[in-house]
Amino acid sequence: MIDVKLLSITANAEKLIEECGRTAYLSFNMKNSDSTARFIRMLIKSGHLSVFEHASASFRIKGGSRAFTHQLVRHRMASFTQQSQRYVNENNFSFVIPQSIENNNEAKKLFISHLEDTKYLYNQLLSIGIKKEDARFVLPNAIESEIVITANFREWRHILFIRGEKQAQWEIRKIAIDILKILKLKVPNCFYDMKIEDNIIIIDKTGKY
Amino acid sequence: MIDVKLLSITANAEKLIEECGRTAYLSFNMKNSDSTARFIRMLIKSGHLSVFEHASASFRIKGGSRAFTHQLVRHRMASFTQQSQRYVNENNFSFVIPQSIENNNEAKKLFISHLEDTKYLYNQLLSIGIKKEDARFVLPNAIESEIVITANFREWRHILFIRGEKQAQWEIRKIAIDILKILKLKVPNCFYDMKIEDNIIIIDKTGKY
Amino acid sequence: MIDVKLLSITANAEKLIEECGRTAYLSFNMKNSDSTARFIRMLIKSGHLSVFEHASASFRIKGGSRAFTHQLVRHRMASFTQQSQRYVNENNFSFVIPQSIENNNEAKKLFISHLEDTKYLYNQLLSIGIKKEDARFVLPNAIESEIVITANFREWRHILFIRGEKQAQWEIRKIAIDILKILKLKVPNCFYDMKIEDNIIIIDKTGKY
Amino acid sequence: MIDVKLLSITANAEKLIEECGRTAYLSFNMKNSDSTARFIRMLIKSGHLSVFEHASASFRIKGGSRAFTHQLVRHRMASFTQQSQRYVNENNFSFVIPQSIENNNEAKKLFISHLEDTKYLYNQLLSIGIKKEDARFVLPNAIESEIVITANFREWRHILFIRGEKQAQWEIRKIAIDILKILKLKVPNCFYDMKIEDNIIIIDKTGKY
Repeated sequence: MIDVKLLSITANAEKLIEECGRTAYLSFNMKNSDSTARFIRMLIKSGHLSVFEHASASFRIKGGSRAFTHQLVRHRMASFTQQSQRYVNENNFSFVIPQSIENNNEAKKLFISHLEDTKYLYNQLLSIGIKKEDARFVLPNAIESEIVITANFREWRHILFIRGEKQAQWEIRKIAIDILKILKLKVPNCFYDMKIEDNIIIIDKTGKY
Repeated sequence: MIDVKLLSITANAEKLIEECGRTAYLSFNMKNSDSTARFIRMLIKSGHLSVFEHASASFRIKGGSRAFTHQLVRHRMASFTQQSQRYVNENNFSFVIPQSIENNNEAKKLFISHLEDTKYLYNQLLSIGIKKEDARFVLPNAIESEIVITANFREWRHILFIRGEKQAQWEIRKIAIDILKILKLKVPNCFYDMKIEDNIIIIDKTGKY
Repeated sequence: MIDVKLLSITANAEKLIEECGRTAYLSFNMKNSDSTARFIRMLIKSGHLSVFEHASASFRIKGGSRAFTHQLVRHRMASFTQQSQRYVNENNFSFVIPQSIENNNEAKKLFISHLEDTKYLYNQLLSIGIKKEDARFVLPNAIESEIVITANFREWRHILFIRGEKQAQWEIRKIAIDILKILKLKVPNCFYDMKIEDNIIIIDKTGKY
Repeated sequence: MIDVKLLSITANAEKLIEECGRTAYLSFNMKNSDSTARFIRMLIKSGHLSVFEHASASFRIKGGSRAFTHQLVRHRMASFTQQSQRYVNENNFSFVIPQSIENNNEAKKLFISHLEDTKYLYNQLLSIGIKKEDARFVLPNAIESEIVITANFREWRHILFIRGEKQAQWEIRKIAIDILKILKLKVPNCFYDMKIEDNIIIIDKTGKY
């Protein structure tokens, strides 16, 4: 079960982005009680996304597979801390079952049986003296791996768009959607143009502002 | 006059760093009321600095020269928004006087007189129809330029060490020290080994933990 | 006078990009004498630009102003080495005259006279014992500064597009165009969709492949 | 069997680094037939490593496991293209056997038998209609995965040092050593202080220059 939890987000992030962004023009006198939404949406419209780098958000993701984490860590403008298979004993690991396998009785039976065999073998290897860092070579992509990721809002916009689009792999797209939902609640203007339709993330350029 | 102001810092940053760092070992059960300081200092001692990337701080720096900002923006693992000379009218600019010039009567007189001439010329150029983006070609390195910078704690450790050491240029070293003082107040464990001695930033590896 | 010189470019860059790109699909058997152009243009069309990171080019740029270099070094996915005003004696500096000033007799006269005054002052300051690193505070944005930049092709595509578009500042746009001309000669497929029209860089998405 | 192959390296890299580095001081007149080695070693001694970013090298690595590639792609100042398990059919995959398992008859037998079972299952899943991108969930860390990596010399110095040290994992350390051997042959001065002793990479600060 995927579990995405917001660990931390810049306090008053939208106010901060306005405060930082107005430095370019020294237009602080134009700030007022309702200038923030307009200013932020103007930045998005005009493509001045660098200002969004001043705010960031950290998420803990549980229940994703190592197939997913291997994709996720390819994003280089982000920071990661991941459960280590060299140090953590995986003797009772959980695993992800892809929907297409879940839906196919034969495949599901073969899959689960294999994963249980793998778990048994992993424990056997440890018991005859193989270290965790070598025994892990039998562990499959399906194994769950906990990961924490921090990125700034500009990069979140990029990651979520790339990983939420139609061609993206289903697992990372699902997680991207969970993250976007949280960010849209917390900082609605910073992601106002990113919409979720039919489990796909799209950019809606027709929105107001 | 240099004016360094903390705009934003990750809330409960040290707790967050512990929370993220323990993901590698799934050692959450070892957290307790006084585990944070020990955990963070252990990360520094063992060089596991990547975990410090999960927290960040933003500063507004006023009163630094364009000589300073040209150096500062060379740091690539940070985010900047700077007062634009293309858009902001510099008709009444302030400027930085280096100490060595301040201390030399003849130099100081020549310097101030030249800066006033430059200001007069800049306004003349605007008045005869030259745009700000071209008139600014006469503006000197000494001119003050406001800048906002955001960086994560790992990068702050790096920037402050590099820019606070003996060979660093005096202006950026002064600002590095101002920033370090604030960070040491806010997140003392994350910078516990960085000390200020004789206006130089040093790493003290002899400290406890 | 702007002088852009190619210092280094990845040997057989387009072949290398194909060679690297085919790793994703293990489709090496599809390489042949005329597969390279098609493969590279397909990467561009489908937005798989990460493969372009395997090749890079280095340029020496002489005759640009410090206004230009302060903008250029904001690109963070590139590497720079720049003439240092702390170490190089600027007693006989050259400078850039913006076209709008060149075209305005009064402005031009004021500008050149001010730059000559500045040069005289800089030398005076040195002669009364001020160090280069402090005397440089009087040096203007117009001063020429030599810089070397290395970036990979993906980043060059980004830099040249951003700095070559209509709203870009004239000096950096001029240099972007000079660089693009050289790259189009050396690696035509990697930049086949980037065109120069009326001194502006545009992306032409209608081209074949 | 690990197979590390140099795909590309900057032509005349050491000359280029000298050429770029002398830009800071405009000291081109000090170049001569034997100045390069001295200049480069001086850069290393004084820690001016940014100049090493102007040269880069690309390697193809075959025969490494997905455990290894998951570690390797954590390096963010490098560029990667990797064999995709979403697109490449792994119906006849090769795999890595850790030395500790190779040396233990019981473990080796269990390990190989499990890997053959896994291969059989993967093919079964494909044959009953599961797509490659989902069938790959059973594939283990041990599976071989081809990868191309490009990095500049500054980053290679960092990667090889971190991944070649004593605490590093054996597989990535072995590959780091293979890469360092090639780089020491091609650009000996750029890596002159990095030595291989007892299958560990060390920095020797006592060397001449």
